[in-house]
Amino acid sequence: MAGAIDARLQELGIELPEAAAPAANYVPYVVSGNQVFVAGQITIHDGEIQYVGKLGRDYGVEEGQAAARLCALNIIAQVKAACGGDLDRVVRCVRLGGFVNSTADFTDQPEVINGASNLMVEVFGDKGKHSRAAVSAASLPRGVAVEVDAVFEIS
Amino acid sequence: MAGAIDARLQELGIELPEAAAPAANYVPYVVSGNQVFVAGQITIHDGEIQYVGKLGRDYGVEEGQAAARLCALNIIAQVKAACGGDLDRVVRCVRLGGFVNSTADFTDQPEVINGASNLMVEVFGDKGKHSRAAVSAASLPRGVAVEVDAVFEIS
Amino acid sequence: MAGAIDARLQELGIELPEAAAPAANYVPYVVSGNQVFVAGQITIHDGEIQYVGKLGRDYGVEEGQAAARLCALNIIAQVKAACGGDLDRVVRCVRLGGFVNSTADFTDQPEVINGASNLMVEVFGDKGKHSRAAVSAASLPRGVAVEVDAVFEIS
Repeated sequence: MAGAIDARLQELGIELPEAAAPAANYVPYVVSGNQVFVAGQITIHDGEIQYVGKLGRDYGVEEGQAAARLCALNIIAQVKAACGGDLDRVVRCVRLGGFVNSTADFTDQPEVINGASNLMVEVFGDKGKHSRAAVSAASLPRGVAVEVDAVFEIS
Repeated sequence: MAGAIDARLQELGIELPEAAAPAANYVPYVVSGNQVFVAGQITIHDGEIQYVGKLGRDYGVEEGQAAARLCALNIIAQVKAACGGDLDRVVRCVRLGGFVNSTADFTDQPEVINGASNLMVEVFGDKGKHSRAAVSAASLPRGVAVEVDAVFEIS
Repeated sequence: MAGAIDARLQELGIELPEAAAPAANYVPYVVSGNQVFVAGQITIHDGEIQYVGKLGRDYGVEEGQAAARLCALNIIAQVKAACGGDLDRVVRCVRLGGFVNSTADFTDQPEVINGASNLMVEVFGDKGKHSRAAVSAASLPRGVAVEVDAVFEIS
């Protein structure tokens, strides 16, 4: 029986990717009290790495937004796992930490990370409105264009 | 009726800037339990972006400290909004995350971010003593020199 | 009387470094509720800075892992101080934030930060399994190769 957020995902035509398995001695999320700390998610879709390159050189803002949206999809998949499958337990997306792999003179980090921020509000409505930081990293794992981590509050 | 922290701000001759409005589908702060997560604040003063450039090339440590202090002023303005205007509800500045827009060989991130750290202790005393990370970003939104985010505990 | 984790440290032949003193108006850790926020720890061992240089230029992955492990040792030393000396109070390593000082084309951040992640699981077992982010910084304080901060849950 699908919940309200599952119905919303279907309405948006969004299919969540598989929640990626842990790559090492870390795990994709940890629940501490009623907070879920989600590990940095990169631009992987069902096991395939996408968007390898730098903003300001290889990708423009629109492609960066699509990359950030993909990270956000992976975050939601992890939160769903953290909630035992029931996304209606999400009380709030508390924080997103957005890292953009860019050249040294790139200045549109906010626009790129909006790709993740917008998805949160599309899916969770007001509960998806979060605090965030958006900065450039000198480089990112596997050379991907964007990495986003998150803190959620769940009930 | 001003509280103790408001009186302290006045004593220090510090006027808080306007709490900047949300720029997108994110918000300047989220309250989760008794923690306030403040979004990354940049060097904006009353709507005007300041300190655009890199440490190690365009700015020296003292200018970097002034930039970090401006970010911290914006953080306090957001925390005040999160407290419904009453900064006496601040229990602790828990964490600052400081990002310095710098060249690849800049090594004085701690001194720069002290501009934010020092303001917290000037204003909040022992309650202003926080954990922090201070690192360089490859670049920052709008090209600003410093971005700082924060976690506070409030009552 | 040593606790279980102290015994585990001894079994592993690990001697914790001195918990480094605060360098400024910030402190090495803040306890908020049952969470400990540990400030970014760098590659200092008993007051001596080590591993000054960049991954992808000065250091290979194995040296980077050793640098990350040293940061993690300093984190555990701070958590021990936060627990009043009793590491058995650790409920969970909730999150590690790993920053790698690297060239712009370095892509093995996960392998480097595994040096910290692995130590957490060696010492704390399943309680050491954490969420994390691993990104490159344009540069780091004092030019060190790795900085890691952390959130722990304690009882």
